[in-house]
Amino acid sequence: MASDLGPSAALIGAAGSRALVATPALVLDLDAFEANLARMAALAAAAGVGLRPHAKTHKSATVARRQMAAGALGICCAKLGEAEALVEAAPELSGILLTSPVVTEGSVARLVALAKRTRGLMAVVDHPRAVAALGAAAVAAGIRLPLLVDLDMGLHRTGVADRQGALSLARQVAEHPGLAFAGVQAYAGHLQHIAEHDSRRSLSLAALDDVRGTVAALGEAGLAPGIVTGSGTGTFAIDLEAGVFTELQCGSYLFMDVEYDAVGQVGGGPQAFAPALFVEATVISANAPHFVTVDAGLKAFATEGPKPLVLAGAPAEAQYFFMGDEHGAVTASEGDPARPPLAGRLLLQVPHCDPTVNLYDRYHVVQGDTLVDIWPIEARGRSQ
Amino acid sequence: MASDLGPSAALIGAAGSRALVATPALVLDLDAFEANLARMAALAAAAGVGLRPHAKTHKSATVARRQMAAGALGICCAKLGEAEALVEAAPELSGILLTSPVVTEGSVARLVALAKRTRGLMAVVDHPRAVAALGAAAVAAGIRLPLLVDLDMGLHRTGVADRQGALSLARQVAEHPGLAFAGVQAYAGHLQHIAEHDSRRSLSLAALDDVRGTVAALGEAGLAPGIVTGSGTGTFAIDLEAGVFTELQCGSYLFMDVEYDAVGQVGGGPQAFAPALFVEATVISANAPHFVTVDAGLKAFATEGPKPLVLAGAPAEAQYFFMGDEHGAVTASEGDPARPPLAGRLLLQVPHCDPTVNLYDRYHVVQGDTLVDIWPIEARGRSQ
Repeated sequence: MASDLGPSAALIGAAGSRALVATPALVLDLDAFEANLARMAALAAAAGVGLRPHAKTHKSATVARRQMAAGALGICCAKLGEAEALVEAAPELSGILLTSPVVTEGSVARLVALAKRTRGLMAVVDHPRAVAALGAAAVAAGIRLPLLVDLDMGLHRTGVADRQGALSLARQVAEHPGLAFAGVQAYAGHLQHIAEHDSRRSLSLAALDDVRGTVAALGEAGLAPGIVTGSGTGTFAIDLEAGVFTELQCGSYLFMDVEYDAVGQVGGGPQAFAPALFVEATVISANAPHFVTVDAGLKAFATEGPKPLVLAGAPAEAQYFFMGDEHGAVTASEGDPARPPLAGRLLLQVPHCDPTVNLYDRYHVVQGDTLVDIWPIEARGRSQ
Repeated sequence: MASDLGPSAALIGAAGSRALVATPALVLDLDAFEANLARMAALAAAAGVGLRPHAKTHKSATVARRQMAAGALGICCAKLGEAEALVEAAPELSGILLTSPVVTEGSVARLVALAKRTRGLMAVVDHPRAVAALGAAAVAAGIRLPLLVDLDMGLHRTGVADRQGALSLARQVAEHPGLAFAGVQAYAGHLQHIAEHDSRRSLSLAALDDVRGTVAALGEAGLAPGIVTGSGTGTFAIDLEAGVFTELQCGSYLFMDVEYDAVGQVGGGPQAFAPALFVEATVISANAPHFVTVDAGLKAFATEGPKPLVLAGAPAEAQYFFMGDEHGAVTASEGDPARPPLAGRLLLQVPHCDPTVNLYDRYHVVQGDTLVDIWPIEARGRSQ
């Protein structure tokens, strides 16, 4: 699969090749991407904090390799299947942290098998039964599996609800012969997208105070966490200021999207990341007086967040709206000289990057008008 | 790809194997599916109307073959890439109708190439420039390409807006040496999901009256359309009553979904189709007092319509809600004996079938507790 670059492979490097890629196409602006990659690496390094970026955003071995080359400690994966797919494509990857609990008998067995194939695999736990199951499997496999205790930061999605529970779980991990207590995870998913900076900051700092207290309590119990991981593109600057995390899990900074562009903080100063990920679409019908119809619909974009943002190929004020599984409308009135013609090509910023990427098999990597590379999305759909 | 059945292939046929398929899994109930397949075939046959079901729903060569075996005239495809993928997997498929206009130079060339590889390929047009481009390419390739004129039924997504335009475009097709005028398409996407039956019926009949008039006018002009195609799972019974269509394009009847279950008509009499498509998910965290967290989120379901419906594995009144890219919450209070345990397995009906299918690489086909087959979804993501 890693070598299947799709029908546009022959176009790579040819002048004007970008316009020949069949649409809807997921397009990555290489220069913006590389700038984002380097900027986050530099910010983390300057703060003396590690970076283990989240691969659930990009699901690509090529991107993971580049993150490692830029100094990342490893990568985070949301799901075991995602990690398996990336290790299969890039066996040299190391330091993978699985950020969701692994609890079934089948997935515990897969996790232990993966831990034998890749260096530095870690997972999180939020329940004593999962600790027991992972420990037993690790002992049976003759390995020692490093685990992090997942702390609930208030989202209540996963994690241990209180400090006493965290201490108890950490102790269970530390005392198990098949396990090693590696630290804690404290991801505040519910705080990443609060648009107003001051609210996001005060809520984040309050939640981090609580994490700081848990870290201290663990230390006093002789269970000082080597790793304190969390953060995201919406709060990383605040998180660096608080100084609780030893490493960051940010993912979306690579691509940016309409959703994160609406979050205040990232729009200025050294934290500025540029949109790098787009969908290109083509006008396939132009008979309606007030809009044209493009070939990108519900199957081409994540649909749970904001709408895709029209950036080029249409009037400046043009709006996109969904027109079913396969189509979208882009507003542009007849007579407007900027109305795109039949077969015209439009550029749209992705609304929410992670689930949009999960719809595509590959990135079409561009510089200006040239398709310069194609990167397979090996872990697309690997949510198991 | 067609032979890659994924990590669960070894489970096929084993007793209790369904519970061992890694989640989130797209699960097809074979008996319900076969009943739906046979029922629509029988309804169309009884009405003396052809069936060319829409493959944009299922994207699977196996399902397409079964539809053909049940008497379908062919299949509809929304996109050229979808048709290419299905023909690659099942070269014996014939009678494919491309239901979206093909307008770019690159896609016109691909369409003509596909027409040389498969029997009975047809496409739709809604603009004179597309007719000219397709005609020139067909002449150059030494073929005669059958085209249907797409009529705008009021959705304004694609199609010719008025009768005069339809006549003019049909004439252009009929007079071109590389083309053949095969008929008209009249798909009323905006009427399929009107929940109230009487409104859906009156609006459909009015729109079909207009189509009837266009068909008559074409006949009077010596351009009687051999094919009048359209309809969908929401309106097919009304459409059969009106007697305008020579064939139907329904797709969702195979699977049903929460969205179509909310549409009145299909819930009774011979038109009753049963839900056949589900997502199975696993509880990966159970620390919150009022819900449990499952491993199926924004990447596991279409998100633009209703919510996934919890059918089994949780309290009867349990609700699903999205908890981010990878997770969902299912309401169930502590102390409720029906609250699913950690690692418990839940069954959910898919909210909107087409874009949900497009997230998965394969159907896990089940009968009762047994995984009986795995069908690859060859055209998943092939929206180009």
